[in-house]
Amino acid sequence: MSIIDINCDMGESFGAYKLGTDEEILKYITSANIACGFHAGDPATMRKTVKLALEHEVGIGVHPGLPDLAGFGRRNIDISPQEAYEMVVYQIGSLWGFVKAEGGTIQHVKPHGALYNMAAVNRELSEAIAEAVYKVNPELILFGLAGSELVSAGEKIGLRTASEVFADRTYQQDRTLTSRKLPHAVITDDDAAVAQVIRMAKEGKVMTQQDVDVDIKADTVCIHGDGAHALSFAKKIRQTLEESGISVRKIGESI
Amino acid sequence: MSIIDINCDMGESFGAYKLGTDEEILKYITSANIACGFHAGDPATMRKTVKLALEHEVGIGVHPGLPDLAGFGRRNIDISPQEAYEMVVYQIGSLWGFVKAEGGTIQHVKPHGALYNMAAVNRELSEAIAEAVYKVNPELILFGLAGSELVSAGEKIGLRTASEVFADRTYQQDRTLTSRKLPHAVITDDDAAVAQVIRMAKEGKVMTQQDVDVDIKADTVCIHGDGAHALSFAKKIRQTLEESGISVRKIGESI
Amino acid sequence: MSIIDINCDMGESFGAYKLGTDEEILKYITSANIACGFHAGDPATMRKTVKLALEHEVGIGVHPGLPDLAGFGRRNIDISPQEAYEMVVYQIGSLWGFVKAEGGTIQHVKPHGALYNMAAVNRELSEAIAEAVYKVNPELILFGLAGSELVSAGEKIGLRTASEVFADRTYQQDRTLTSRKLPHAVITDDDAAVAQVIRMAKEGKVMTQQDVDVDIKADTVCIHGDGAHALSFAKKIRQTLEESGISVRKIGESI
Amino acid sequence: MSIIDINCDMGESFGAYKLGTDEEILKYITSANIACGFHAGDPATMRKTVKLALEHEVGIGVHPGLPDLAGFGRRNIDISPQEAYEMVVYQIGSLWGFVKAEGGTIQHVKPHGALYNMAAVNRELSEAIAEAVYKVNPELILFGLAGSELVSAGEKIGLRTASEVFADRTYQQDRTLTSRKLPHAVITDDDAAVAQVIRMAKEGKVMTQQDVDVDIKADTVCIHGDGAHALSFAKKIRQTLEESGISVRKIGESI
Repeated sequence: MSIIDINCDMGESFGAYKLGTDEEILKYITSANIACGFHAGDPATMRKTVKLALEHEVGIGVHPGLPDLAGFGRRNIDISPQEAYEMVVYQIGSLWGFVKAEGGTIQHVKPHGALYNMAAVNRELSEAIAEAVYKVNPELILFGLAGSELVSAGEKIGLRTASEVFADRTYQQDRTLTSRKLPHAVITDDDAAVAQVIRMAKEGKVMTQQDVDVDIKADTVCIHGDGAHALSFAKKIRQTLEESGISVRKIGESI
Repeated sequence: MSIIDINCDMGESFGAYKLGTDEEILKYITSANIACGFHAGDPATMRKTVKLALEHEVGIGVHPGLPDLAGFGRRNIDISPQEAYEMVVYQIGSLWGFVKAEGGTIQHVKPHGALYNMAAVNRELSEAIAEAVYKVNPELILFGLAGSELVSAGEKIGLRTASEVFADRTYQQDRTLTSRKLPHAVITDDDAAVAQVIRMAKEGKVMTQQDVDVDIKADTVCIHGDGAHALSFAKKIRQTLEESGISVRKIGESI
Repeated sequence: MSIIDINCDMGESFGAYKLGTDEEILKYITSANIACGFHAGDPATMRKTVKLALEHEVGIGVHPGLPDLAGFGRRNIDISPQEAYEMVVYQIGSLWGFVKAEGGTIQHVKPHGALYNMAAVNRELSEAIAEAVYKVNPELILFGLAGSELVSAGEKIGLRTASEVFADRTYQQDRTLTSRKLPHAVITDDDAAVAQVIRMAKEGKVMTQQDVDVDIKADTVCIHGDGAHALSFAKKIRQTLEESGISVRKIGESI
Repeated sequence: MSIIDINCDMGESFGAYKLGTDEEILKYITSANIACGFHAGDPATMRKTVKLALEHEVGIGVHPGLPDLAGFGRRNIDISPQEAYEMVVYQIGSLWGFVKAEGGTIQHVKPHGALYNMAAVNRELSEAIAEAVYKVNPELILFGLAGSELVSAGEKIGLRTASEVFADRTYQQDRTLTSRKLPHAVITDDDAAVAQVIRMAKEGKVMTQQDVDVDIKADTVCIHGDGAHALSFAKKIRQTLEESGISVRKIGESI
């Protein structure tokens, strides 16, 4: 039987600023990527989000980002591999404090935004990130875009990895996501989005924008937690995946 | 035989800004309080400082501060006990990441600057800080001003504590430090400063500004790491303490 | 005829974080206090808010806060008068850039949150803030709590000042606001809140929690811009003030 | 007679962190580029540096940088032209506050580090920066690398521009600086560095790494203010330029 994990970014509020519907979305996901104060999040939000994640028994993940609160970690910053290593070690630790205080354990690490995208295509950056994760705790699972340098770097150093796919994004023949600057980058039809994930999970294949089928590994699917539509989509994808005979389980239980 | 620990703040550089003479001062101290990016320090500096501390086999301490880089953590901020708890958990974790990556362990936690001073006289704040330390790791040693609320809070929750004394500061009859706003707050004569520490370590007593002797517990003495004079004073106090028959050992080995 | 200004804090979004309903609330107010990036706001938000304020022809105000985005400028920080001077000069300038680029002029300065509250009762801090405003532009109007040190400091240095009152807060006999930590600090009934403002504007009097009437100067009334209720209250207070024969005009036109 | 301006970055201290020897170097330069808190500097440092610059009667310049204190503004950040516009408007304003408070005027704007380098080769970014300067004050002079997009954008919008050259860097045939990643990027011999500047100022030519002479416009030469060697080089270049019959004057007096 096919198995898949559903992950979502969480804990992205900051001070007086509230973002997302964490408490609601947690009902439908199996892994939570918790921001650590660099691109979003703050100590109060981290504590609260860790507690919520433990209550809902989802896998807890570190979601390290670039130090760019104003840009929400979405702007590329030309950091060195060493800086990437240091940022990731710092952020894993910062979340570990709260997880430890609440009696839980960390399941995975998923870089955020521009750090995730830069790493996907940059071997040195990916190796630095993988090394950071491995040196802090070799039991952690590293999330990366399916087929990316980040997944390769994780495997190379000896980490368990999770190949991530996207429900609402289209793919290119080289397995990269279609750039948001191009047409048809986003799948706006919910049924089509869910169908894409089901096929990736069951058959390990995705139809690309070049009208060519490619193989793709789908260990975990990323959904979004903000916007009015997020909640209904989360509910739908969870339900439809299960109805299709795909087991939705947190990644730490299946690899 | 009397035993004392010598501690010093470290890792207070930030980006292009360099502060302190960590590599030199590490030769004379037994415990290092490492900044965690709130009042000073950054991931690169933390990594480097943890490595240096391990090489010199000194006790590694977390040095959590208020989130005030511009004020170097020296300005009181009216935070709630809950915020103090969260800041301390976050910062312990952040340093833990680097210590874990380098194969070491954390020995102690010493709040910095305004956080240290506010906690010294504020029971609720001290209890929140002690709880943060305890919940992350009950084996950690909490540093606080001798006779302060912070030491009391640490003992109450079940932590080992280290009562801290100062070489170059004068004391009031209530065991608080003489405010820097008053005359005679600082002992500028090195011999007098060292003599004060020796008496605190050997006899457990200090002569106050009121010309009254008071009892004081001296588990660890704080020295400063910046300024041209810091290094020669560090060397002198280490040497004189040992010549006086006081064993200088990192706190984790003696309590 | 009585005249009053209605002011509201604006431009408090930050990066991906949205706050307030600026575009709607601008229809009902006459002066906008625009955040400058210290407690809230960022360059993009400042630019957009300045444009909106000019379109709606409201008075543009600088809203300088403490450097505490995580605390939204609401936590007291023990800054020196000199630091207050410098923060205020910096923030006036930062907004001036956008106002100048859009062809407008600045009408007033109103400190935010903890800076406003600390200044209200601290003469040195108030004098430093007033000096900052005066030295950058002696034509600017300084907003302060009616009867506060800030208004006194402004008058003393030669600035025009606006005495500010609150619609939804109760008063003490010494003209301070009832602390939010005490019962009955907030007036939750809209009619009662508006009635209080009308009486302050027409008669220059307010009934205090001690059941004693006191004199109060009401040049401008502060309303809040966030929360679902903000908009309907803004509409109601504007309408009721005008129906009561009170002229609602931006402060720069009446003093 | 040839004329040249000597400019230097200033006011790059931050809080407890001190950088540079501003007070000494000011004796030898004619224009000061003052940091505005994004890549370095803080309100206290800005105030102090503006005062010093006025005392030494040098031209005062805004030195806007990327919002990256940890990276000292030297890491490329993938900002949009609109973000560049907003950052520059904000920073010009912030310095303007201090200059106005001290009774001075701003002479020029010179972007810092990565912002300067990105703009040099990016037309859209340069146009956004030039527009920011122009809209705040069309009288300001825009500094940019000689032959760069930034100078072109400034001229296009109608600003006066200053073509900047470097004493201690070698040039490529396309008039760009030799990358620091390549050999011979830096001229370590002081006499050779000064000779290069003299030739650029007098003849408008520079010998490139391709052993080909190219034309270059040299309105202002940049020198560095930190490092032990900075001061002696500043003294030497000032003296030698003047002895060579080149008039060293602040840019605002010559264009």
